[in-house]
Amino acid sequence: MKKVIAEREVFKTSIFTIKEIDLKLKNGKKVTFSLVEKKDSSLIVPITEDGKLILIKEYFAAIDDCQLSLPKGRVDSGNPLEAANRELQEEIGYKSGELIRLGTLIVSPGNTRHKTHVYLARKLVKSKLPGDEDEEIELLKIPFDNFEKFIDKKQLTEARVIASLYLARRYMKSRRKVLK
Amino acid sequence: MKKVIAEREVFKTSIFTIKEIDLKLKNGKKVTFSLVEKKDSSLIVPITEDGKLILIKEYFAAIDDCQLSLPKGRVDSGNPLEAANRELQEEIGYKSGELIRLGTLIVSPGNTRHKTHVYLARKLVKSKLPGDEDEEIELLKIPFDNFEKFIDKKQLTEARVIASLYLARRYMKSRRKVLK
Repeated sequence: MKKVIAEREVFKTSIFTIKEIDLKLKNGKKVTFSLVEKKDSSLIVPITEDGKLILIKEYFAAIDDCQLSLPKGRVDSGNPLEAANRELQEEIGYKSGELIRLGTLIVSPGNTRHKTHVYLARKLVKSKLPGDEDEEIELLKIPFDNFEKFIDKKQLTEARVIASLYLARRYMKSRRKVLK
Repeated sequence: MKKVIAEREVFKTSIFTIKEIDLKLKNGKKVTFSLVEKKDSSLIVPITEDGKLILIKEYFAAIDDCQLSLPKGRVDSGNPLEAANRELQEEIGYKSGELIRLGTLIVSPGNTRHKTHVYLARKLVKSKLPGDEDEEIELLKIPFDNFEKFIDKKQLTEARVIASLYLARRYMKSRRKVLK
């Protein structure tokens, strides 16, 4: 199998670091490629007591446009669970009494090691923490299964968000079966 | 709303370019952030005539490990549809007589403009094109709905791949209904 044999930093911004990686191939040849290193994230699927899904509408600078999304943010210090509860309070003004781990997603395994920790948040209670000064966030509360309508309308296009919503739906369906 | 007012290249590798973007906030303040620019991709969900899903097992350099994935590759010249049929032939040795567009996914709208064009590929016929010299790809043919078992086993963790499989399943279910 191939194997990473060396890596070094070649460029740095406030959000990510570019590294050069030397890779040894099966035939002994060495190749070099670049990757983007970035802090991991937590992403949360928040469900209210009456079964509604909370989506956020947010401006994303790289695409210079608004998209529907889910609360998410960097795991700075502390663990992904703490980051999840902090982002919930900053972005939607709730904290969760029950955060259920749905899995860990990768986004582009050829180019980055970045991981996204996905949680389902239940038992929400109002609790607001100040968010980033320049974040303007609009909330949408919708019946859970309606998220697919927003995929059809191309208002929900982020892979991590779509994958997380389907993982959440699967978790909830399996649980309903167990409870019956 | 916020608005991008200027952008400039600050670093370049063979695969991506780092840009600095100036953004004007609602309050008139200017902020600068960085983004990663990369060519768009096509990603394909291949389904055989007997309804099996073809997954690939591939080594990904950034995570220095193998993962289950779907055929995907860069849209270099030509359109995403051509890239889809080329990748199918390079990575799994089939071409498709029916490529159905399932949507366009974004991966990290705060950090990149990269888009992934997702296709469902039917009517597969054997046709092999030489792939990248250092790609070692293993194929798995599985009953379609079994993909969730690989998510549970943490062998399938890439957000774009999981999102695309659910979009494909939804498309096929809706079609089955129409045909009945």
